[in-house]
Amino acid sequence: MSIKNDTASYIIAPDPDNPRLTRKVTGVDHMGQETETNVVEERPLTIFLNGQEIVTAMTIGDYPEYLALGFLRNQGMLQPDETVLRVDFDEELETVVVRTDGSTTYEEKLKKKTRTSGCAVGTVFGDMMEGLEDLHLPATKVRTSDLYQLSKTINTTPSLYLTAGAIHGTVLCQGGRPLVYMEDVGRHNAVDKVAGWMQSTGTGAQDKLLYTTGRMTSEMVIKCALMGIPVLASRSGFTAWGVEIARQVDLTLIGRLRGQRYVCLSGAHRLIRDAVPSSETENPETIRKGARRD
Amino acid sequence: MSIKNDTASYIIAPDPDNPRLTRKVTGVDHMGQETETNVVEERPLTIFLNGQEIVTAMTIGDYPEYLALGFLRNQGMLQPDETVLRVDFDEELETVVVRTDGSTTYEEKLKKKTRTSGCAVGTVFGDMMEGLEDLHLPATKVRTSDLYQLSKTINTTPSLYLTAGAIHGTVLCQGGRPLVYMEDVGRHNAVDKVAGWMQSTGTGAQDKLLYTTGRMTSEMVIKCALMGIPVLASRSGFTAWGVEIARQVDLTLIGRLRGQRYVCLSGAHRLIRDAVPSSETENPETIRKGARRD
Repeated sequence: MSIKNDTASYIIAPDPDNPRLTRKVTGVDHMGQETETNVVEERPLTIFLNGQEIVTAMTIGDYPEYLALGFLRNQGMLQPDETVLRVDFDEELETVVVRTDGSTTYEEKLKKKTRTSGCAVGTVFGDMMEGLEDLHLPATKVRTSDLYQLSKTINTTPSLYLTAGAIHGTVLCQGGRPLVYMEDVGRHNAVDKVAGWMQSTGTGAQDKLLYTTGRMTSEMVIKCALMGIPVLASRSGFTAWGVEIARQVDLTLIGRLRGQRYVCLSGAHRLIRDAVPSSETENPETIRKGARRD
Repeated sequence: MSIKNDTASYIIAPDPDNPRLTRKVTGVDHMGQETETNVVEERPLTIFLNGQEIVTAMTIGDYPEYLALGFLRNQGMLQPDETVLRVDFDEELETVVVRTDGSTTYEEKLKKKTRTSGCAVGTVFGDMMEGLEDLHLPATKVRTSDLYQLSKTINTTPSLYLTAGAIHGTVLCQGGRPLVYMEDVGRHNAVDKVAGWMQSTGTGAQDKLLYTTGRMTSEMVIKCALMGIPVLASRSGFTAWGVEIARQVDLTLIGRLRGQRYVCLSGAHRLIRDAVPSSETENPETIRKGARRD
């Protein structure tokens, strides 16, 4: 009884057949022939926290409520102990309003910061680093057999990526099972939608792994760590600061995961190597050259 | 006398040997062996316009002056007719200050907007759409032989991407010649550095083509159009809104450019098909599946 190969075991899977998410566009190909191409939608969504307009994100437009909740949580604008009363999405106005009990800490913070610097753009990032010092990520083990299984399942799951390309995916996983697979034009939106889903459903982070199709930059590592997820994996590569932060907070960072290959640049103590690949299943040179941008 | 294959013909080429831009990091590979991996650096850079802190960008750290200038231009915070007196980079403080003659329009705008909305994050994007209505891009032709040549030259140019991966590139091109090839962890930074270089050197846009390794989203198309460059090409894909805006402003959009293949979803009237590929040099299925995220 294995659920590992069953994509129906997703709690949320990509929805490539949803007509709201892609559009057929007519163009000309390299042979000069008219051609029809599937492209992903991209819409503005303005996120409000109570009476405060926070940001306009460009998104494919699915799960706006999760995106708003996750964005606010991941930016530290919504504290874990705050009660979310309602999340209202207005499709016509392209807005989503997250309502909490009373004025939030963030609104106070923002007022103070806006007065001093005149612009909140630069301070949002500063806030994200807050809370990293006190962070203790659980020692949850990762089986390499699960890693390989996840990579295979995720890459073969019908998705907007396979249908239209030009999109990123983030998958919340447990053991060898992908649970929630979100896609979006911005790789951060995909992570935020996962965070919003976790917040809404009260899902714990300690036994999870986060898979991203994108690069593991500092922001991505910080997000994963603040979400409390001890393992971040990607088919893509690393930045130096991403690695540094992962090591500081003892987060396991597995990159360039393709076929049976990967590189672990932080937290290798969590790995249980129960699936040992044959010594050279793939040419390392091919892999290096195939390193994805994202 | 062809300069087309000569990467030395770049005015600015990538600098993969610059020790400030990559770092060797030790980790563990899929065989459980210690391995050394090249990763790109990622540093904060805070951009000031006169006395105003504008944003903290994450960047590899080369050409901070071009990044600052290009960012401010591309966000509409610096007008084409404003005189830039000086651009000062302080490596230790990780700041760059762009000084203009007098208080800028943007600073006034920001003050007003900050008072009304309390946060400038959401308004920056709105500003970017400004100026698109009056835009007239030149009818500059594009030879497909030049397209193929550019794609080949750019993909084989020694770069941080080939050395360390996880990075984006943007190349300003003229005919079949790549002029300025910028790389950065953020794909927008790479474009902004090109814009900053154009602004600093007074380089005209009307006969240029912009090549990006990233997806052609709405923001990327808007940037290219506002820079006055009539053609945007990429190995990567499109978003629906990116295509829509390109058609509105009559910008030529060439995507999924790999080998001899491409799809043109806007402004095909600029194409001169002087290099006609053999009917099926590559399997379309392979290409579709190989569609890059970015």
